[in-house]
Amino acid sequence: MHRMEKRTLTRARLVEAALNVFAFEGYEHATVDDIARAAGLSKGAFYFNFNTKEEVLLELLSRWADERSSLLHAAFAFERDAGTRLRAMAEALAAYRGGTNWPPLVLEFWSQALRAGEVGRRLGQAYRDWRKLLATAAAEAGDAVAGRPGQVADAILAIHDGAVSEIALGRTRGTTRAAPALWAMVAAGIGRPAPLRVEAAAAGA
Amino acid sequence: MHRMEKRTLTRARLVEAALNVFAFEGYEHATVDDIARAAGLSKGAFYFNFNTKEEVLLELLSRWADERSSLLHAAFAFERDAGTRLRAMAEALAAYRGGTNWPPLVLEFWSQALRAGEVGRRLGQAYRDWRKLLATAAAEAGDAVAGRPGQVADAILAIHDGAVSEIALGRTRGTTRAAPALWAMVAAGIGRPAPLRVEAAAAGA
Repeated sequence: MHRMEKRTLTRARLVEAALNVFAFEGYEHATVDDIARAAGLSKGAFYFNFNTKEEVLLELLSRWADERSSLLHAAFAFERDAGTRLRAMAEALAAYRGGTNWPPLVLEFWSQALRAGEVGRRLGQAYRDWRKLLATAAAEAGDAVAGRPGQVADAILAIHDGAVSEIALGRTRGTTRAAPALWAMVAAGIGRPAPLRVEAAAAGA
Repeated sequence: MHRMEKRTLTRARLVEAALNVFAFEGYEHATVDDIARAAGLSKGAFYFNFNTKEEVLLELLSRWADERSSLLHAAFAFERDAGTRLRAMAEALAAYRGGTNWPPLVLEFWSQALRAGEVGRRLGQAYRDWRKLLATAAAEAGDAVAGRPGQVADAILAIHDGAVSEIALGRTRGTTRAAPALWAMVAAGIGRPAPLRVEAAAAGA
């Protein structure tokens, strides 16, 4: 194995180990020693790859944000119908595989974003990018969606955040219960022009 | 002033100071010294009232949970129409006054709930109580709500959690943008019997 390949592998092992350590022990509690031990490597190996544990947190933040962005863009590109596309995007953003450690780690991103400048800056950037793409998709769905595009985008981001806390705090196992239910209710307002509601209310009176 | 009254006041000052210190510096970083200083009191005054900073966090958790419960029960008791009641409950749960430090502190509750047993236990209890009341209200709303009562309850909890992260992370100022938009979309599915959607889709085809 070449030296470069070996270094990439070592780095990946450290990042993977840090994901588990941060998710279980919390970012503040975790030490460089904990990460190195969990990766089965020396502290020296850690410092050969990273200067601080914040650097590892930022790398994890990038990985998570890139993964969410890929899911979102895939749904955006794949679905033809504007309403279906928006739904697929909301589902993709809030989908976390069972057993993954991302949800508890996202709680750590949020907590650190309150005071660690770079974490806050990158997290803010990720949300702004997602909001822009979601608003574009919502605008394309036009009158079929109850709400202005920016509002629909904010709502979908909130569905994601609610799913993260629900999974992380163990109110559900592995996957979110709320996100699909919430989206089903939101979707009930999609595909039906607004006037229908008035007619239905009048017919029911 | 009686000794008991004075002690109650001192305790309230410490709890109020801890709310700000935990919200700005983070629970893990904050020290008993920081809290006492912010309250304009001595470390001795702190230890006369609390044994640990976790005790203060638990008192803050109780205050927050009691406040949310009061808002939720008030909306439940006050509104007559079942659909309006559910909407009022969702809005009450997700409402945080501008400038309040609760949203960033709730992120700290979530983060600590992952590893501090008592925080997790009490937070879980609060969510279970709210879910029960919300499911009761959703069941009373009957067919008017798109979704099973438990799902609707989970969705409303997710709206709250999404609002908390949105406000805490400064994607909005003071109040949530997403929660009202999300609720408006959910509410678009309330008050309309489900079959209408099929008819509307058929009519549009």
